[in-house]
Amino acid sequence: MENDGLKFRGCLEYSEENEADEKEHTSPTYIVIQFAPKVKIETAKWIIQKIISAKNVGGADLTVKQQPRFNDDIGLILHVSASHFKLLELAEELDIRKRDRKGSIRDFTMSAMDDFINLQSSECSSDILSTAEKQCLVRHELENIRAFETESSVPGYPHIHLYEGQSILMACLHWRLILQIFPLHDEDEVRKLGKLWFMSLFSKQPFEAIRGYFGESVALYFQFLDYYTTFLLVPMIFGFYQMFMTTEAIAFFCIFNILSASVFLEMWRRKCSELAYLWGTIGMASSMDEPRPNFRGTMAIDVVTGKKQPQFPRWKTNLKMYCVSLPLVVVCMLGAFLIMLISFWAEEMLKSNVEVSPNFYMLPSIIYAGLIYVMNLAYRRFANFLTEWENHRTQSQFDRHRVTKLVLFEFVNNFMSLFYIAFVIQDMEMLRSQLATLLIILQLLNNFQESLLPLFLRYSVDKVSSITNIVKGKKKSKGTDNLNEDLGIPEMDPNSHFVQQAQREAGMDIYEDPYDDYLELFVQFGYVFLFSAIYPMAAFWSVVNNVLEIRSDAFKLCCVYQRPMSRRVKDTGAWQRAFQALCAMSVLTNCGLLCLQPSLRALAPDMSPVEWVLLFVGLEHVLLGIRQILHYAIPDKPDWVRIQLARINYQSKQALKYKKRT
Amino acid sequence: MENDGLKFRGCLEYSEENEADEKEHTSPTYIVIQFAPKVKIETAKWIIQKIISAKNVGGADLTVKQQPRFNDDIGLILHVSASHFKLLELAEELDIRKRDRKGSIRDFTMSAMDDFINLQSSECSSDILSTAEKQCLVRHELENIRAFETESSVPGYPHIHLYEGQSILMACLHWRLILQIFPLHDEDEVRKLGKLWFMSLFSKQPFEAIRGYFGESVALYFQFLDYYTTFLLVPMIFGFYQMFMTTEAIAFFCIFNILSASVFLEMWRRKCSELAYLWGTIGMASSMDEPRPNFRGTMAIDVVTGKKQPQFPRWKTNLKMYCVSLPLVVVCMLGAFLIMLISFWAEEMLKSNVEVSPNFYMLPSIIYAGLIYVMNLAYRRFANFLTEWENHRTQSQFDRHRVTKLVLFEFVNNFMSLFYIAFVIQDMEMLRSQLATLLIILQLLNNFQESLLPLFLRYSVDKVSSITNIVKGKKKSKGTDNLNEDLGIPEMDPNSHFVQQAQREAGMDIYEDPYDDYLELFVQFGYVFLFSAIYPMAAFWSVVNNVLEIRSDAFKLCCVYQRPMSRRVKDTGAWQRAFQALCAMSVLTNCGLLCLQPSLRALAPDMSPVEWVLLFVGLEHVLLGIRQILHYAIPDKPDWVRIQLARINYQSKQALKYKKRT
Repeated sequence: MENDGLKFRGCLEYSEENEADEKEHTSPTYIVIQFAPKVKIETAKWIIQKIISAKNVGGADLTVKQQPRFNDDIGLILHVSASHFKLLELAEELDIRKRDRKGSIRDFTMSAMDDFINLQSSECSSDILSTAEKQCLVRHELENIRAFETESSVPGYPHIHLYEGQSILMACLHWRLILQIFPLHDEDEVRKLGKLWFMSLFSKQPFEAIRGYFGESVALYFQFLDYYTTFLLVPMIFGFYQMFMTTEAIAFFCIFNILSASVFLEMWRRKCSELAYLWGTIGMASSMDEPRPNFRGTMAIDVVTGKKQPQFPRWKTNLKMYCVSLPLVVVCMLGAFLIMLISFWAEEMLKSNVEVSPNFYMLPSIIYAGLIYVMNLAYRRFANFLTEWENHRTQSQFDRHRVTKLVLFEFVNNFMSLFYIAFVIQDMEMLRSQLATLLIILQLLNNFQESLLPLFLRYSVDKVSSITNIVKGKKKSKGTDNLNEDLGIPEMDPNSHFVQQAQREAGMDIYEDPYDDYLELFVQFGYVFLFSAIYPMAAFWSVVNNVLEIRSDAFKLCCVYQRPMSRRVKDTGAWQRAFQALCAMSVLTNCGLLCLQPSLRALAPDMSPVEWVLLFVGLEHVLLGIRQILHYAIPDKPDWVRIQLARINYQSKQALKYKKRT
Repeated sequence: MENDGLKFRGCLEYSEENEADEKEHTSPTYIVIQFAPKVKIETAKWIIQKIISAKNVGGADLTVKQQPRFNDDIGLILHVSASHFKLLELAEELDIRKRDRKGSIRDFTMSAMDDFINLQSSECSSDILSTAEKQCLVRHELENIRAFETESSVPGYPHIHLYEGQSILMACLHWRLILQIFPLHDEDEVRKLGKLWFMSLFSKQPFEAIRGYFGESVALYFQFLDYYTTFLLVPMIFGFYQMFMTTEAIAFFCIFNILSASVFLEMWRRKCSELAYLWGTIGMASSMDEPRPNFRGTMAIDVVTGKKQPQFPRWKTNLKMYCVSLPLVVVCMLGAFLIMLISFWAEEMLKSNVEVSPNFYMLPSIIYAGLIYVMNLAYRRFANFLTEWENHRTQSQFDRHRVTKLVLFEFVNNFMSLFYIAFVIQDMEMLRSQLATLLIILQLLNNFQESLLPLFLRYSVDKVSSITNIVKGKKKSKGTDNLNEDLGIPEMDPNSHFVQQAQREAGMDIYEDPYDDYLELFVQFGYVFLFSAIYPMAAFWSVVNNVLEIRSDAFKLCCVYQRPMSRRVKDTGAWQRAFQALCAMSVLTNCGLLCLQPSLRALAPDMSPVEWVLLFVGLEHVLLGIRQILHYAIPDKPDWVRIQLARINYQSKQALKYKKRT
């Protein structure tokens, strides 16, 4: 132990020197803040002061440097960094859990730092935290700079009001005083990651490296994508079989498919809790976590933590949710449903009208597709607005309710027309062709839009920006540079690669969260399972798509988008429920489709129509019952996770019990 | 604080004196152990030695006295007691939670004892624990006397094998060396309790006193009974309305009834977690608790607590459950179903046979009722055996799986014949009369059987036993009393009221757990809600019954039965699920009944039969969907409980985190 301590201290001293060294030259930039071009100097100064001043006076205690400014058209750009001691302190404060040398996951503390250093791999204390964690910690500190009671407005902008406890940077972002806050890519690391990830098409994804670089939220999405694609092989193989099968066999396979999907979702829940345990995020109580930066409330002592945090009564949020948001969402869904009906009705009208040429038959569908696109955009903003207005306390609550709203609407948009074809028009051939078209075209479009289009756009933008750079260079001579001297923070070397990177990455698209990626899988899951009785080949096309999707998503994250802010999550949240609802729905639709199948009906000509319907209603109830039993019988967490958690729980209870004694 | 400490110490000294005083005369008996008459002296000695010897040599460290023996026909009777210091130590060890002076519920510790004494009510340390808790602690210690590796059989009975870690007293109970182990009533306390409880018909039940006297398990049952009866007022009022209503209105009310039952069950879950928090049992993890005494396994260090406890792999239990018990239970259910079918078929046969007189029509029903009674008894033993064999680790797991098995069978027995009448025979008048008869007769029978019959039996037994007492008195002169001298423990005064009480209560019936009481409510709940569309008056009769039931159950617990062992529970466990399943089922049955209602059918003569059926299938799905949404939307725990738990969780995590630092 003595030796370990020595080695560790040596390592520490070394890195301290290093840091002193770095401070002059190239202390790493964790977060970049880009101001709007014309922001008043007093505002910038106020914010900088907040960032660098100590925590006890409401600051974030971080270090800031400014990027050299060539002209006034480009706003001030700040590079925020922190000493690695500061980062470790933050890790302790924010209950980051790490694996210790004995392999168990526990809360990191400075005093027990030795336990967390892996001596075999000659790590030192600066390697304890991953780059994603470091950025996450710095961002957390920035977002938690909150306005005092005395600060009723932003200096220089008396019309921008602040309330006590509001996140200052979030307010400035909202009012466009700050254009963006983003973390920088680590070019070495991302290159290494890319080589392991999207460059090698058939190897396992490097999940730990993904988590280290992009954080838990992104890593969980890729884990899900991987797990889901592997599972899809089951319906895919059955899909092939079914091509050579009789209709009765199809009914059997279809039921098997649905049940296997239920099992898959239960297994994913287990997998999730396993990952959350290994990642140290399992303890995150969704409602008791840190408040999100945009959470509005009066500052008061939190009853749970005893820290001063914004407080807002939960019942008000519930009231807003159930009395305002819910009815509005339902109205939107009904609206979308109505538009769908009108489109079908219009198409019928056109077809029945002999004077109209067949070329126009597609018109309502095209108009409908256009409308959906517009409605989707509008609804997404509306859902964001509503969820923000409901004022959820934590990020995970916010995400859950936002996703729920969006998924409900997307469900109507994506599946209602298919339901209409299946159960109102009852044209199985039309349903099958529609499904195949949607599945394949949508997936092609998505992959194109996600990675190729932004890449293309970026290259064209790059050309434009390099032109502006030349203009900038020219302008520099007549720049006054007064601003720079006033701010009182060091200016960076214009040739520093951080400066160049910040300039480059500021123009990249922003990857908000894996919402769109999950949505894509959600729609795909629907196409595969909702109508599995009609189009069993859907699984095959989905597997093909997903194998490509893994790599194209990886490519897009590494090369196309700004590095996303790392987010700690413990499960797939609202998506789990959305997939489960879809799976339950697929029991209904498949039983319905089988019931309508004329070839099956021919097998029991003696049954009355009512008996025939009741047979499938019975089948459906049995299947739903089995799902329910599976849900109860498969535990949420694998045994080993449960035992580990119980152990931590027991130990911490004991520690609390005897706290006063020691 | 100084003063408080003094007062507390004073109180302590006083009670210590008191205790020394008591030791000579009347130290309270917590648990009575009655041996079989002819048990060998070495066995009795061995057990007594185990009970009194220190914990580090595998004993229970309790005090034992023996009841004077008048003859050899009555076995040795031991009175087990413990000093109140010992009890407090146990309370700390077993994580008993108590409300401290500030009102928050936390783990009791000896070192923080001052915090738990309510000085206002001039309590002293011996009042911290309720009598139920004291008995529970003593019983726990007794049950946890476990065999060593070297003790391969019971001394004196080489054929009774023991394995390492087996509970010795449980083994002796199983082999009938010990006839019973039971706690004594506290005659003062039970009289006071009775006055508040069953003597005052229309006042609120004294739940806290019930818990203090009978423990959490019984208190929870009465809370449930109270909560449920209050809720039943809703369907009762609607039931009255419906007598003056048209058929369509009945459909509406019926749907409303089912939904309100769903809400009731969700609210009860909340209420449960509230109670569990206040009672300090909410932290009990069902699978991580203390192992139950009959749990078999090799002794090893438990990974969670680090204590030496019996270990048995969970997967073996699961294997036994799913591969053996489940199929067997299903077979039993099918058997019961078949017997029901045969009974109906036999009745039909008799009726169609003109030669049989109508007097014999009831014969199959009577035989069926008799068969059910016998099958029930046999099945109950079988279910106990299976659940014991599955070897569940904790009492709550054991209870849950036992109750699940029993409820499945009872469901077939109680409701299948009604289902048959409703949906196969489709005779609504018959269903209604059958329901009314079953409901009213069963309830009358139950109340009679539960409290009046045992009371009557006891009085007749009392007479018999007073005769034996006289005989005993005579026999005493020729008794040898050799045994008494050998045992080396003090003999009690024959006139001590503990001795007389033990003699009296040893002959009383045993109240195992509230299983039968819950079952009664379960069946009632089924009668009220499963066929709510047909017989809305069921709610009224149930309310009448329950108002009486509360008092008769109270009477039976206080006066008729042995004092039950206090059991700590955190919720209604398997019953919650059983009621929920019944509630979901009632959606199905009511939709089915409404669909069959000719008066409703007459309202839509234009609909085809298939459309009509689909209408009700649709209604059913909507209702089930609403239930699911209610389940998600109503949180399991009220906000204040969630916050309190989060707080404890936060504090204990912090305590663990900084354990090494301090």
